[in-house]
Amino acid sequence: MKTIIYSSQDIVKIVKHVGLDVFMDEAIAALTSAFAEFDKSAYEIPIRDGFEYHHPTLGLVEWMPAMKVNSHIVLKMVGYHPNNPTVQNLPSVLSTSFSLDTKTGHVTGIMDSTFTTAIRTAAASAIASRIMAKSDSSVLGLVGCGAQAISQLHALSRVLPLQQVLLFDTDIAVSKNFAKRIAALGLSNIKITVSPLTELVSRADIICTTTSVDIGHGPVFHDDMLQPHVHINAVGSDFPGKVEVPVSVLKRSLVCPDFMQQAMLEGECQQLCANEIGPDLTQLVQQSSEYQKYRNQTTVFDSTGWALEDFIMNNLVAKYASELNCGTEVQMTTEAQDCKDPYRFLRDA
Amino acid sequence: MKTIIYSSQDIVKIVKHVGLDVFMDEAIAALTSAFAEFDKSAYEIPIRDGFEYHHPTLGLVEWMPAMKVNSHIVLKMVGYHPNNPTVQNLPSVLSTSFSLDTKTGHVTGIMDSTFTTAIRTAAASAIASRIMAKSDSSVLGLVGCGAQAISQLHALSRVLPLQQVLLFDTDIAVSKNFAKRIAALGLSNIKITVSPLTELVSRADIICTTTSVDIGHGPVFHDDMLQPHVHINAVGSDFPGKVEVPVSVLKRSLVCPDFMQQAMLEGECQQLCANEIGPDLTQLVQQSSEYQKYRNQTTVFDSTGWALEDFIMNNLVAKYASELNCGTEVQMTTEAQDCKDPYRFLRDA
Repeated sequence: MKTIIYSSQDIVKIVKHVGLDVFMDEAIAALTSAFAEFDKSAYEIPIRDGFEYHHPTLGLVEWMPAMKVNSHIVLKMVGYHPNNPTVQNLPSVLSTSFSLDTKTGHVTGIMDSTFTTAIRTAAASAIASRIMAKSDSSVLGLVGCGAQAISQLHALSRVLPLQQVLLFDTDIAVSKNFAKRIAALGLSNIKITVSPLTELVSRADIICTTTSVDIGHGPVFHDDMLQPHVHINAVGSDFPGKVEVPVSVLKRSLVCPDFMQQAMLEGECQQLCANEIGPDLTQLVQQSSEYQKYRNQTTVFDSTGWALEDFIMNNLVAKYASELNCGTEVQMTTEAQDCKDPYRFLRDA
Repeated sequence: MKTIIYSSQDIVKIVKHVGLDVFMDEAIAALTSAFAEFDKSAYEIPIRDGFEYHHPTLGLVEWMPAMKVNSHIVLKMVGYHPNNPTVQNLPSVLSTSFSLDTKTGHVTGIMDSTFTTAIRTAAASAIASRIMAKSDSSVLGLVGCGAQAISQLHALSRVLPLQQVLLFDTDIAVSKNFAKRIAALGLSNIKITVSPLTELVSRADIICTTTSVDIGHGPVFHDDMLQPHVHINAVGSDFPGKVEVPVSVLKRSLVCPDFMQQAMLEGECQQLCANEIGPDLTQLVQQSSEYQKYRNQTTVFDSTGWALEDFIMNNLVAKYASELNCGTEVQMTTEAQDCKDPYRFLRDA
């Protein structure tokens, strides 16, 4: 039985062929369709589980399974290790996903998902922002200027008329070299400015928080002079005890989590009761005309990352890989000559 | 970042080099050590979870994570699809496992685990039988003569002086071709006999049940004329509602589950209350001299499969692979030139 390995080189081939902008647009379109058509009875998506630890370093490894009934399963393994960038020169979020055929239980594909995780997270913010943010939003504030800030900016630039980006990071060097890091994105029409946090918060039409703030050390900005219509994509909270947005802001906002149960455990929704939380992302998309009314009010997208998004991205990459003949076949499991003899493959080899 | 793929061909290379008997002996030794030294605080092994479904076929896909604190994580995906042998000519149990480094969250290895799953399951039965069965047990009864029956026989033949094997399968053809299927095992000193179920049950010193009995259709033999000292390895029960052993037998036996919580959900222990269940496998091994007293009584090993066993087998295969230079390196995740730019690898490639 063949298993296709989609390595980072395959992802490179696909994205170079398709183009980064088009790939992001396709991700936004595929996820929008999936949310619009989402039917609970067609999927099983349990809440993710994982290991949290403090040794050998602070880390979280989670498994995120999703099954489309009568079709296939995607299980994504994702690690969050906030010390990766400084200690290992690695992204803090690393990810690999596995597809299984429900006819046999065979693993049909293994995919590097670090890039697609960044893309789908950014695409989800773009989808939420397109509905909840003012459609003429032009000033984006990025609180935290690491890897995720780049993909968030990229996705938002595809759906909103951004003119200026205000940058804040607790590490000034990271905000200062941001412009250099996005040079290849072709966003030269957008003005990039390092900014004091208070100015960023008071001027932004949209704020994205993508910080590695420590547990118990949030929020990452104060509820001070925010634009009344500000839309916040709270992306960094994905760990019990980690929050980025002041509770007073959340309490007066329409708060849309990607996955309610999980957001209440790991996201900004930790700070709220169930009755203070608005529609989830699928409801937001399915009833978008109703929720566009909130564009002049404060709104928050509480993004924790949802296995459905990974399921859809997996399909998207596999579709392109098939078109471009990417991926490496491995004989992961033997086609037994006699499936009732567990040792037969030793003799047939 | 490199990920090593250990395909079925690599497993073949390793087992051919080591020898099947020695490999089984090593598995029994490694698992015995792991059980003897098992310290709950050194591992996190949550109960496995999964998807159960009836379409497109009856199936169960589970993920079995285990973390050695301060070291690494192994997560095994395992599918149980009882129609695989007849419909797909595939084993009913297929499996793949993933190792992650807890320093970074990187997936360091991906391993075909179908063979090692059979081996570790059989090795666990051998370990339990060595303690609970009479040490002169010579007659083994196999109820269900598929793939798992072969590895069970193999493992037991390494630890007990077997002289005769009695075979029963609801598919008579499967019991009749069993002798042919084990020809390569070098067990010519053991007499292999197809037997009526009642005779098997009344003559066996040890019984192994490895059936695909449907949910709600167990048990697979009657509590009739069993040897008072019989030891039963109940291997097939691994699904809610699936049982193989009569409850009356369980109630008068010392019942040792591999993993208590899980056995109560999926194994024979579904039929018992907590206070009717004996030591788990680690306690059995750690206090083996105490439990050898039960050799003259009826005993049951309730095997559901435990993630610690897969963790240990993963280490064993990886050790041999390293010695023999097996496995294929794949650039699963890019070594980012700038870990704060999620798109940089597209340019560096």
